[in-house]
Amino acid sequence: MHMQRIRVVKEALDANNTIARANRADFDRAGVAVVNLMSAPGSGKTTLLERSLARLDEWNDATPAPRLGIIEGDVQGNFDAQRLAEFHVPVVQINTDAGFGGECHLDANMVRSALPSMPLDSIELLVIENVGNLVCPAEFKVGEDHRVMITSVTEGEDKPLKYPLMFRACELVVINKIDLLPHLDVDLNQLLKNIDAAHPGVRCMLVSAKTGEGLDAWCEWLWSTARKATAAV
Amino acid sequence: MHMQRIRVVKEALDANNTIARANRADFDRAGVAVVNLMSAPGSGKTTLLERSLARLDEWNDATPAPRLGIIEGDVQGNFDAQRLAEFHVPVVQINTDAGFGGECHLDANMVRSALPSMPLDSIELLVIENVGNLVCPAEFKVGEDHRVMITSVTEGEDKPLKYPLMFRACELVVINKIDLLPHLDVDLNQLLKNIDAAHPGVRCMLVSAKTGEGLDAWCEWLWSTARKATAAV
Repeated sequence: MHMQRIRVVKEALDANNTIARANRADFDRAGVAVVNLMSAPGSGKTTLLERSLARLDEWNDATPAPRLGIIEGDVQGNFDAQRLAEFHVPVVQINTDAGFGGECHLDANMVRSALPSMPLDSIELLVIENVGNLVCPAEFKVGEDHRVMITSVTEGEDKPLKYPLMFRACELVVINKIDLLPHLDVDLNQLLKNIDAAHPGVRCMLVSAKTGEGLDAWCEWLWSTARKATAAV
Repeated sequence: MHMQRIRVVKEALDANNTIARANRADFDRAGVAVVNLMSAPGSGKTTLLERSLARLDEWNDATPAPRLGIIEGDVQGNFDAQRLAEFHVPVVQINTDAGFGGECHLDANMVRSALPSMPLDSIELLVIENVGNLVCPAEFKVGEDHRVMITSVTEGEDKPLKYPLMFRACELVVINKIDLLPHLDVDLNQLLKNIDAAHPGVRCMLVSAKTGEGLDAWCEWLWSTARKATAAV
């Protein structure tokens, strides 16, 4: 019984990977870099994107900021999509609540269903804001180049030990809400040690989307992903 | 294809409900009240339980505190179980990471597998700390009497609108970390309005597990669930 269950899951992931590769091919043809942004609910993904979009205009003319598109994944509602559409970038909302109680992650087919609404030829960087969840989003590739997770310091030091796959699946961990550290019983060094135990050597970035601390490094990293993709086309 | 998928999910939930009823029968025979405690990762479930267990000893002798047991659900590790076992109550750890990347919720069969290790005849109240996730745990009954969720104010006002099933599935919403409100751009009234929009009339409790604010009301509610179950046997 246990074996059978694993087989079915494997098949589901095989099908997902097939569609993820098709998405990947479309992104490559258009020269679009794709970042899959994941976190627990309320870690600040949307606020970080708002702050990043606000920086686009201020960016150094010598290294022009990329044209962004955003796919928003939520169980229900389009609140985050509305917030981001204020910045006049193309935003496509995916809701995962059709039938059942709602899917807890985006999969490659959901992202594929959003692509006809996204002008891939007019953008250089697509950010996919996944459903807030530290487990399943890490299991489903969607055709992205880069996987990034945000962990808020308010969530405690122990999350890398309890949700190791998510930390292992990402090449960059953004540690957000560092402005709150003085008000928390959270040991930042222990959090960094636990992240490194889950994913040795993974890059970490300390950020406060609220105060703007660390935003330059984050935007530089994000914009650089787009420059690499454009250079490759 | 879409229809077939829904059918399979329904069958999975039917099987889950069958096992949940078997769990329920065992709890009833033993006169044990069961609380399913759910939240996003890092909302403070374990810390709230630590504070509740610390109160057990101080409780009024006229209304004796119940004997507790705890089932801990995590993808990986037993950090929370270790923290709670310090209070000399029976704690059973369920890890959901067998095969695959880990299940993002507890289901009735996982809880059933933990019952032989839990001395049901020696306890009056069983608290099941679910995997940190605002989506799937709400979809899987495990045989509980009461479903409670914790939402931390750091997660923002919009979570009831984005994860409505979780808020609708619970009879009590504990709003935790209220000590951080002065440091956040979060509107508590808007959060309360959004909770009421998702689940009209649901009881909300303002708590800071850190400072102890609101803990009396929470413990009184928790202990009262056990008294009702014992009275019914």
